[in-house]
Amino acid sequence: MEAAQANKLFFASDYQEGAHPAILQRFVETNLVSSPGYGTDDFCMEARERIREACGTPEAGVFFLTGGTQANATVIDAMLRPWEGVVAADSGHISVHEAGAIEAGGHKVLTLPGKDGMINAAQLRSLLETFHSDGNKDHMVWPGMVYLSQPTEFGTLYSLEALTDIHEVCREYGIRLYVDGARLAYALASPVNDVSLADLGRLCDAFYIGGTKCGAFFGEAVVLPDPELIPHFFTIIKQHGALFAKGRLMGLQFGTLFDKDPESGELLYAQIGRTAIAAADRLREVLIQKGYTLCFGSPTNQVFVLMENKQLERLGRSVEYSFWETHGEDHTIIRLASSWATRMEDVERLAELL
Amino acid sequence: MEAAQANKLFFASDYQEGAHPAILQRFVETNLVSSPGYGTDDFCMEARERIREACGTPEAGVFFLTGGTQANATVIDAMLRPWEGVVAADSGHISVHEAGAIEAGGHKVLTLPGKDGMINAAQLRSLLETFHSDGNKDHMVWPGMVYLSQPTEFGTLYSLEALTDIHEVCREYGIRLYVDGARLAYALASPVNDVSLADLGRLCDAFYIGGTKCGAFFGEAVVLPDPELIPHFFTIIKQHGALFAKGRLMGLQFGTLFDKDPESGELLYAQIGRTAIAAADRLREVLIQKGYTLCFGSPTNQVFVLMENKQLERLGRSVEYSFWETHGEDHTIIRLASSWATRMEDVERLAELL
Amino acid sequence: MEAAQANKLFFASDYQEGAHPAILQRFVETNLVSSPGYGTDDFCMEARERIREACGTPEAGVFFLTGGTQANATVIDAMLRPWEGVVAADSGHISVHEAGAIEAGGHKVLTLPGKDGMINAAQLRSLLETFHSDGNKDHMVWPGMVYLSQPTEFGTLYSLEALTDIHEVCREYGIRLYVDGARLAYALASPVNDVSLADLGRLCDAFYIGGTKCGAFFGEAVVLPDPELIPHFFTIIKQHGALFAKGRLMGLQFGTLFDKDPESGELLYAQIGRTAIAAADRLREVLIQKGYTLCFGSPTNQVFVLMENKQLERLGRSVEYSFWETHGEDHTIIRLASSWATRMEDVERLAELL
Amino acid sequence: MEAAQANKLFFASDYQEGAHPAILQRFVETNLVSSPGYGTDDFCMEARERIREACGTPEAGVFFLTGGTQANATVIDAMLRPWEGVVAADSGHISVHEAGAIEAGGHKVLTLPGKDGMINAAQLRSLLETFHSDGNKDHMVWPGMVYLSQPTEFGTLYSLEALTDIHEVCREYGIRLYVDGARLAYALASPVNDVSLADLGRLCDAFYIGGTKCGAFFGEAVVLPDPELIPHFFTIIKQHGALFAKGRLMGLQFGTLFDKDPESGELLYAQIGRTAIAAADRLREVLIQKGYTLCFGSPTNQVFVLMENKQLERLGRSVEYSFWETHGEDHTIIRLASSWATRMEDVERLAELL
Repeated sequence: MEAAQANKLFFASDYQEGAHPAILQRFVETNLVSSPGYGTDDFCMEARERIREACGTPEAGVFFLTGGTQANATVIDAMLRPWEGVVAADSGHISVHEAGAIEAGGHKVLTLPGKDGMINAAQLRSLLETFHSDGNKDHMVWPGMVYLSQPTEFGTLYSLEALTDIHEVCREYGIRLYVDGARLAYALASPVNDVSLADLGRLCDAFYIGGTKCGAFFGEAVVLPDPELIPHFFTIIKQHGALFAKGRLMGLQFGTLFDKDPESGELLYAQIGRTAIAAADRLREVLIQKGYTLCFGSPTNQVFVLMENKQLERLGRSVEYSFWETHGEDHTIIRLASSWATRMEDVERLAELL
Repeated sequence: MEAAQANKLFFASDYQEGAHPAILQRFVETNLVSSPGYGTDDFCMEARERIREACGTPEAGVFFLTGGTQANATVIDAMLRPWEGVVAADSGHISVHEAGAIEAGGHKVLTLPGKDGMINAAQLRSLLETFHSDGNKDHMVWPGMVYLSQPTEFGTLYSLEALTDIHEVCREYGIRLYVDGARLAYALASPVNDVSLADLGRLCDAFYIGGTKCGAFFGEAVVLPDPELIPHFFTIIKQHGALFAKGRLMGLQFGTLFDKDPESGELLYAQIGRTAIAAADRLREVLIQKGYTLCFGSPTNQVFVLMENKQLERLGRSVEYSFWETHGEDHTIIRLASSWATRMEDVERLAELL
Repeated sequence: MEAAQANKLFFASDYQEGAHPAILQRFVETNLVSSPGYGTDDFCMEARERIREACGTPEAGVFFLTGGTQANATVIDAMLRPWEGVVAADSGHISVHEAGAIEAGGHKVLTLPGKDGMINAAQLRSLLETFHSDGNKDHMVWPGMVYLSQPTEFGTLYSLEALTDIHEVCREYGIRLYVDGARLAYALASPVNDVSLADLGRLCDAFYIGGTKCGAFFGEAVVLPDPELIPHFFTIIKQHGALFAKGRLMGLQFGTLFDKDPESGELLYAQIGRTAIAAADRLREVLIQKGYTLCFGSPTNQVFVLMENKQLERLGRSVEYSFWETHGEDHTIIRLASSWATRMEDVERLAELL
Repeated sequence: MEAAQANKLFFASDYQEGAHPAILQRFVETNLVSSPGYGTDDFCMEARERIREACGTPEAGVFFLTGGTQANATVIDAMLRPWEGVVAADSGHISVHEAGAIEAGGHKVLTLPGKDGMINAAQLRSLLETFHSDGNKDHMVWPGMVYLSQPTEFGTLYSLEALTDIHEVCREYGIRLYVDGARLAYALASPVNDVSLADLGRLCDAFYIGGTKCGAFFGEAVVLPDPELIPHFFTIIKQHGALFAKGRLMGLQFGTLFDKDPESGELLYAQIGRTAIAAADRLREVLIQKGYTLCFGSPTNQVFVLMENKQLERLGRSVEYSFWETHGEDHTIIRLASSWATRMEDVERLAELL
């Protein structure tokens, strides 16, 4: 299959390759080290410490799960009580693309119409006010938490102000705030972003730092700034089939992603994000120059572009892209995604093909 | 942590290291290859073909999940209808050590008293006869399938005859048979074993071939000889949070485990099993020579031995072992496990310490 | 509490009193009769036969449950497979007012925007076409059935044409059709209705005939025209905590509701509906005469009317009504409901107060 | 069917007739009273007050559900957290005869071998000690509560001492105690009983007072001495499909059952129990006189007796009884149950037939 690859450019998604070379190297170096299972090993301890430090949450519980849907389903089920549901944008990953995993856990997803994938504090407040003024609320699902993704499924970003406003509504109504950071590295590295890991640590009840789409082979680090929020989370994870035997593999990956460059002091996670953003920004620049219409205003590693169907057919022969949605009879919106593995020379080859 | 290791022998379990070197090498070689997600890639295709061939099940559905509890919970939930439960030994992994994952999926585990971890066809028939002659059966959980593990949690093995008998009772009553093969390599490599992969393919409605404890970094290959048994299994896996984004990682691992040695024609999976069994057999030999009492009669990679508590305290300074159960006031049964990573020199060092 | 009643008119809902006198009389007559439990008695047998005859479904399974949410949750959970969800209007009872009972059973409610409580075949077809053309559909909840209510929560009615069109889309896509008939008597008795019980028996995979709001003390009769659609439904009902020990009580109630008047041949259920519709029609007539604005166009026993808040405060001193929703700063939409128990003299008293 | 009855004696169970005449009379008297739904009416308020007084629990939450399995499934699901299971005798109703309703709610039933339907404090302590000393307990289901039935499924009774001991172990380990009182009237009325309603109110975290089998048409009163133990229980009940629209029907039934005789001050519930116990005691007396073997030592309304199969065949022509279990090839244990509706003349007729 390596041969076929020579002929194609891969921009379909950000999880098409293995892992950042530094992680691969750690797999090689540590392969014969013996360690206990289930995340009780020293690699995990070290990774947790580095994450706690980066997030400014010295007491946080940090748990490693293997994928985003798994993390969402497990955390949301654990944070909600039986009478509660989770508020999310109608385009949220949990609303659409998790095959009903939240409902399989017994909870309703209460959707708000998103704008470019985002909801805002005013919508949330309105939903909560309406709910609490409803005489029948005891016959209804109680909003118990809010789910956001940063960046969103459309690559867009919550500003610190927007996130803070949502946080404040949550506090006011005593509900929890959870952020899905499947592609968090690409948010953190975006020049327009003003939400830091420490902001997440301060404003969220729970969030996860994505590894799978951000340079790891796999793994998502769930951070609970106050670990007492979810008692017995280890057992709950096990019950969800989400307790990974060789937890060390995620420990060493996140230990590496959150390792600082000895010179710059920069986290590898930040560096990975920057590589992808540079590629996406260059791609956006080219697309605009050539007169294409960009969609949704994503400033992160996902580039959404409106294409004429005929042209798309041609492009598809040389480039792997993601279909996003049809747009009228003759056009399609596609997604081109960059990652830690995107080479700038491939971006330039793509530019020529466009 | 590497330093501390020099001083200890690791026999606590069979998933303490990374992966067999051949698998690690595949990770290195393929790291920059681009491929689609969710198990739709060529690595997975190849691995599935090799597994189908090894099991004599040319039409089988083969699905890769990341862990044993996840595989059990997902398969059992998918195979049972709402009114059904699963029959298992009271010592079965699903009965005891999965934090209620089967019940979290809505199903009862109907236990039979195991002997050295095994149940038999006569017990099963009796349970089914009693159930079906009960006038209140419509107020009860219907036995819908049988769960076995091969080897069992006690390292013991179902003989082909015992397995065939259970299979026949299942057919007679129209219920399904599922085998948990978390440590299947160590069953297949045991000299006393007479159940082949092809036997499993012929006698089971579903089984999984364990990777995590048998040489892989992680991964279990669920085999459905008749894939129509579970419609929409891909979606069910997603709903259980068990769909792995970079499925290719499991594809290349199982492709490697089920690769044949060009000279001997032997699967790597078989070779890994033999390494562990050789170590365990040597250990058993030493223990018997030294007068220890072996427990449960395990002929596989887990060695259970009765130890005086005082002696155990000494041993614990040099050796990582697993506590199994107390035995009277002064004794304990411990487990010593070998794996693909066990070096015979370490077995000899352990022999000296005993 | 009887004293306080003299001063108030009760139009808040249709389940504020006990049962139609004919049912009460049956309770009295049969009280000391001994019969077996769980719906296996002769009263239930007779009621089932009468319902089968009325619905033109000679082979139907008929099951008696004690309430609407219970019936919905049990039937929907039993009809859906794990990967499926149920399509409903966003105002559907299961979408809003069942405290997440459908999700607690593991299934997503896939909402369509309703118009006066109704969805139509074109919306349904569009949802199904979009779903089946989505390349990611295996990561999503599969639409497995449609939930309608007749009359709807807004008192409106599906026409036979509208229902037939929805039925045909369901057949085309191989999904099931279920109708919630909590207030079915008031649909059947409405002069604008053209959907008969036999039409429901012919077009639905399942529906329930409401007793609680239509003259019974309690009870809903679930009808499965093809009983093989839900195997082991008795056990599933038990598992949902919905198997009623003295099933006979529902048998004798539905036997009475579906008893024919010896002269007219009319079912008591029809007669009960007519009483309520006559009261509601008179009320609508008065309201229109007095210049009030009626909402949603309900032709059944629920009358929705826009009231000025000041006037409403006055009215509330003499009349029990249901708050429906606020309408601007100064107005409110309220619901006035009639039932089998509404006396025309009370309607006239209400007319004077308006 | 009334005709057929003349020829048979009904001792099969305690829920074969309607309701105690005093309850029937209340249905008649109140039929046209209007009241709000869902248990918010005055009948329910009054019944709650009477139950609180009888149980010595002035702050208790009292909730009316329609059946025992429903009450058990709803209360247990509401009291357990996700990582917890419920400890019960292996013969407990929740263990055997609820079609997996507890597991459908996501929780494991952790069984202890019962003696005549009862478990004891020593068994419970042993289970809890073993669990808490297990190094793998975080991979296991945590015992979170204890389920007992009073009387048990075998008609036997926990003594106050036995119940107090179990209560103390629960307190020591911080787990909850729940008692299923489906037939509680018959416990309270048994001469050997020394556990009062006030004892239950003092020792339990939750219990239910059975109506269905104790003189009501239907209904079970769940008592939570500390109502804050289950927040949002109303919504949870709704979510379980267990919220009864005309809650008043249960309110007036329990109001009647807990009404005091103006002269004796005795509750109707106590009087109902005494009637049944008198009948059962007379039956036991006759059986012993005639040389039959009584089983399990039930001192309540259920009489278990060993019968030769041939004799049983004869008896079955004239008497409805319950099959309990086979006993060897030639014998069967049957259950004869009395109730509020049993007439002493029928007991004497049965005596003649035996």
